[in-house]
Amino acid sequence: MTVRIGLIGAGGMGRAHLARITNELSGGQIVAVADINHDAAVSAAEPYGAKAYDTSDELINDPEVDAVIIATFGKVHAPDVIKCIEAGKYVLCEKPLATTAEDCIAIMEAEQKAGKKLVTVGFMRRFDAAYNEMKAVLEAGENGQALLVHNRHRNPSVPESYTSRMAIDDTAIHEIDTMRWLLGEEIVRVRVERPKSTTHRFDHLIDPVVVVMYTESGVRIDDEVNVNLQWAYSIECELVLETAAVRLGDQEKIHIRDSQGNRNAMCQSHIDRFQGAFNREFQEWINAVARDEHTGSTSWDGYAATSVVDAAVSSLEDETSPMVEVTLMEKPAFYA
Amino acid sequence: MTVRIGLIGAGGMGRAHLARITNELSGGQIVAVADINHDAAVSAAEPYGAKAYDTSDELINDPEVDAVIIATFGKVHAPDVIKCIEAGKYVLCEKPLATTAEDCIAIMEAEQKAGKKLVTVGFMRRFDAAYNEMKAVLEAGENGQALLVHNRHRNPSVPESYTSRMAIDDTAIHEIDTMRWLLGEEIVRVRVERPKSTTHRFDHLIDPVVVVMYTESGVRIDDEVNVNLQWAYSIECELVLETAAVRLGDQEKIHIRDSQGNRNAMCQSHIDRFQGAFNREFQEWINAVARDEHTGSTSWDGYAATSVVDAAVSSLEDETSPMVEVTLMEKPAFYA
Amino acid sequence: MTVRIGLIGAGGMGRAHLARITNELSGGQIVAVADINHDAAVSAAEPYGAKAYDTSDELINDPEVDAVIIATFGKVHAPDVIKCIEAGKYVLCEKPLATTAEDCIAIMEAEQKAGKKLVTVGFMRRFDAAYNEMKAVLEAGENGQALLVHNRHRNPSVPESYTSRMAIDDTAIHEIDTMRWLLGEEIVRVRVERPKSTTHRFDHLIDPVVVVMYTESGVRIDDEVNVNLQWAYSIECELVLETAAVRLGDQEKIHIRDSQGNRNAMCQSHIDRFQGAFNREFQEWINAVARDEHTGSTSWDGYAATSVVDAAVSSLEDETSPMVEVTLMEKPAFYA
Amino acid sequence: MTVRIGLIGAGGMGRAHLARITNELSGGQIVAVADINHDAAVSAAEPYGAKAYDTSDELINDPEVDAVIIATFGKVHAPDVIKCIEAGKYVLCEKPLATTAEDCIAIMEAEQKAGKKLVTVGFMRRFDAAYNEMKAVLEAGENGQALLVHNRHRNPSVPESYTSRMAIDDTAIHEIDTMRWLLGEEIVRVRVERPKSTTHRFDHLIDPVVVVMYTESGVRIDDEVNVNLQWAYSIECELVLETAAVRLGDQEKIHIRDSQGNRNAMCQSHIDRFQGAFNREFQEWINAVARDEHTGSTSWDGYAATSVVDAAVSSLEDETSPMVEVTLMEKPAFYA
Repeated sequence: MTVRIGLIGAGGMGRAHLARITNELSGGQIVAVADINHDAAVSAAEPYGAKAYDTSDELINDPEVDAVIIATFGKVHAPDVIKCIEAGKYVLCEKPLATTAEDCIAIMEAEQKAGKKLVTVGFMRRFDAAYNEMKAVLEAGENGQALLVHNRHRNPSVPESYTSRMAIDDTAIHEIDTMRWLLGEEIVRVRVERPKSTTHRFDHLIDPVVVVMYTESGVRIDDEVNVNLQWAYSIECELVLETAAVRLGDQEKIHIRDSQGNRNAMCQSHIDRFQGAFNREFQEWINAVARDEHTGSTSWDGYAATSVVDAAVSSLEDETSPMVEVTLMEKPAFYA
Repeated sequence: MTVRIGLIGAGGMGRAHLARITNELSGGQIVAVADINHDAAVSAAEPYGAKAYDTSDELINDPEVDAVIIATFGKVHAPDVIKCIEAGKYVLCEKPLATTAEDCIAIMEAEQKAGKKLVTVGFMRRFDAAYNEMKAVLEAGENGQALLVHNRHRNPSVPESYTSRMAIDDTAIHEIDTMRWLLGEEIVRVRVERPKSTTHRFDHLIDPVVVVMYTESGVRIDDEVNVNLQWAYSIECELVLETAAVRLGDQEKIHIRDSQGNRNAMCQSHIDRFQGAFNREFQEWINAVARDEHTGSTSWDGYAATSVVDAAVSSLEDETSPMVEVTLMEKPAFYA
Repeated sequence: MTVRIGLIGAGGMGRAHLARITNELSGGQIVAVADINHDAAVSAAEPYGAKAYDTSDELINDPEVDAVIIATFGKVHAPDVIKCIEAGKYVLCEKPLATTAEDCIAIMEAEQKAGKKLVTVGFMRRFDAAYNEMKAVLEAGENGQALLVHNRHRNPSVPESYTSRMAIDDTAIHEIDTMRWLLGEEIVRVRVERPKSTTHRFDHLIDPVVVVMYTESGVRIDDEVNVNLQWAYSIECELVLETAAVRLGDQEKIHIRDSQGNRNAMCQSHIDRFQGAFNREFQEWINAVARDEHTGSTSWDGYAATSVVDAAVSSLEDETSPMVEVTLMEKPAFYA
Repeated sequence: MTVRIGLIGAGGMGRAHLARITNELSGGQIVAVADINHDAAVSAAEPYGAKAYDTSDELINDPEVDAVIIATFGKVHAPDVIKCIEAGKYVLCEKPLATTAEDCIAIMEAEQKAGKKLVTVGFMRRFDAAYNEMKAVLEAGENGQALLVHNRHRNPSVPESYTSRMAIDDTAIHEIDTMRWLLGEEIVRVRVERPKSTTHRFDHLIDPVVVVMYTESGVRIDDEVNVNLQWAYSIECELVLETAAVRLGDQEKIHIRDSQGNRNAMCQSHIDRFQGAFNREFQEWINAVARDEHTGSTSWDGYAATSVVDAAVSSLEDETSPMVEVTLMEKPAFYA
């Protein structure tokens, strides 16, 4: 069975998903694209012989659309996600699920009412081969429990439109979800610190920041968010177990030895780094939809990530870098 | 357009191709499987709703088969490849193209008569991301010309049925094709040396061997073929340019630091190591067939590899390890 | 000129210094050893034909002793250091210079009164080749200013006598001094956090801890002190500049590829790791004494380290992990 | 006891030894320097308050000289070595011991007549920490016997005066001795091959060359001698055991991550690479002389290395790169 897919949001990310589903993955077909910008919808749909819609409603209600991908801005995710749920259609929503805990709760309520997990949040790192190997070492259990995790989220540069808040809700949100998934527990406290700033940032930006988080069981996580490095897109993670430490490698394929040293080239963009993860995420989602099953992160994961973001932003906005408790509702049995 | 594919040879390799085309790649559909073992054909075809044939003729002549994959033993490749050519169908034939230069020449003659390149030989390393990055460094030209290449083809172990000759025609053949492709020139001389033998081999086997080759322009290539290592499947290559050396990495995803050291796990099988290359090879082939184009290695590449194998085997069989010239026919303009 | 050296404190560290000066270094001779344990002094002195004293006074006042090494417990350092100063003799005192800021101040006053820098504190990492290469990259200035430093001080295990306080005053003190030296500025605030504890510790111990420090200019330093790893003595440091990150390597000499992976053995003790640094420290000190010059860290460095330790201990002892200001007296011009 | 040392040959290498003995090592004193260039002898001797001689005879016969270092050109080594033996003095002679097998035999005869091993050849790699760790892995025996060794002797560049023959007798001679020492057996056959030449060489030079050697037991050794790399002084060695491979690392201290990649700087000179080995070699020699004992490589090692060089040069000089047998006299029991 071929899964007939509709895309809401014909920007760069959405178009990349159309291309991967068509050219690199098995079992999915693009049948519709919706965008409030009519021309964008048309130009994105055309190469695939897909329909173009001006509204998400039309796309969601199209009986020829089996499942929906949402790749619009985070602030407008919630209503479309809820409509997909109400239409009984699986939806893969790019992160964040929604920008407020209230919206996430509304989504969870709709989903519970529907009685079926339909929502997958686009946290693609859960499908990255390297993070999965790290998680396998933890779960093998031979090296004891996790004590600390050290993360680095390093970008070559960010545009002027990138705000200090985005260091949390657009950037660190990846580590927030990945750490919850890796460790299998919730983050309960968070503090955001402000080291000396790089001169390569725009003046309005606090960069770098260090996010310090604690899980329920006491694992300490830090995350250096450093987004004007100039030299690489470098996602680093060290999981410190009781009797071993596990690190993501640079995922390099070759080493060059020359006048610059013995070296491996650094990745320069998240697309290069997570191309494989995106493909696996979408392939698994298509396969799951074809079997009428849920896969990947849930609405609860989206809610928890947004709640940690909220706490982190309130710490970031206070110059004294207070430790802020994360307030989570009780987890519905539906998501256990 | 979906390419309708038939497979000849329902062994492990062939079945792996059926699975990848169906579950991981885009644009291809399995419609028929042929095997002289009737049950094998049926059991391989069944999960895909494909037809099962007892003879390759039936499959090649089935009008619903657009293109053919041959995954039988090397000795029986030639007649089927020629029949595919005569039927005007694209064929991806696992290496070797044929086991004698004469058979390869017959294939090239058939193909020239057909007036169209239809044959791709299954040298999947040409699609490996790491080798391609290495080739890109060479072709960028900033570090001068190639002077030497050092290869290691290391396997954890081989079964008792593996013969000394197979160190060349089954194992080193990969480096033979890859070096021709990487350097863009023919291998003209070859010597096979016999280091001290490992005690982990079966008694009848000469293992390890070192294959020393020279290209037309004088690049010296060596290849340690060492197939009872116990510890890894390790494909290593260092390309020595005038002002740089480029090496394949271990393709590791994570590093572990523990009582065994700071380490990355070693790959244990060619399937793990070249999974990505196989997928890219087949995806490119499906895409090319859909556009009615040829891609990958040609019949000439198959012929040249077999010719180098012949020279290497004659050096291997002489205890004095003579340097043996590779005898190649003049290259037809058709393959230029 | 041969420098005639006396040692106070004939324990393991002191004896290691006797051996290195005699067998591996140039220009120094052991002439006297003092220890309150008479037999220890005699047995340590005997192989070198040196005199044995029961009191440090006798050794310091021996006219045949040109310079003094103090390798007793930190709590008894101060009086001996001051006596050396009063005797006008150069003294290399193992860290800490003294265990209270008051004692350090008394030493500085004595030294200023003597009008000459005579005291070197045994912070041997300042002489480690790897840290010096890191500092050279920073000082070359091509990658901008320092923003963050990430340290790991990882030990295989500690004995039951090791207390939580020692994580700071015996262990982290090395990073405290090294960071001041590396960055060329004072540490002004410090917080000590408590991640989940390893089950491999003795029950009374808080382990691991994370020490977070800020310098005058805002560089953020963290130091994971994790002393029951089981698997290695691993001193790690990453200096994050604006456009580069510099890391200490594992100082490995060989790599092994086998069934455990592609790996380098980990160092197992501080003696192996810092053998070269100890030798360079003592060689430079002997050479400087022969020229009647001071070298290495000063009494001020000893005072500053002890002051940071005091602040860190007070943070460690408060379960809320407060950020504690480091109180430093104004730096005397004498130490500028 | 201080060993009073005389140096014959006041060139750069000899002066480096004077400096190391005086400033970095224990137990030795420079008392005399001889050079046929009077001014060179005087200027080298002066900083150490040593005597300057115009002839080696005067130095060797000076009763205040306990032991002799010879750092002249290889062609004039033999007579001075023999005079040292006849004077009953330990002598450390830089490699080669002599440039002909006959001269080496004459030295061995003199030494046997003296009845005491007095000659150490300056093969400093035997004292390199990395090679010693590699040898320890072999000798631990857990990974079976040695099968192959792959060496690279890579230099940034050589002056116009460097000849093709020197690729063997000045450069590869290091691997020749090191492999004999590492494997504990003689080299019995050697072939020198000529890959494509680098354009960075002087026209008269054959560069790179590959030296292929076999030991008595059949271990195959190759050595890429590549001396106009431009980018590094890189001494590489992989020892291939039956169930492991052991490699020298780059001996790097730090890693830099920046726009050039994740990298370690490459060593640029043999002095940097083997500084530690030179120091250990001379310290051990001084210590042994003080105990009236021999240490390090013997005259037999010097003879064997020169014999392999002779065979290699005859292979190099024949364009067909023949395999040449190494002719060794029977090993005197004296050197067993």
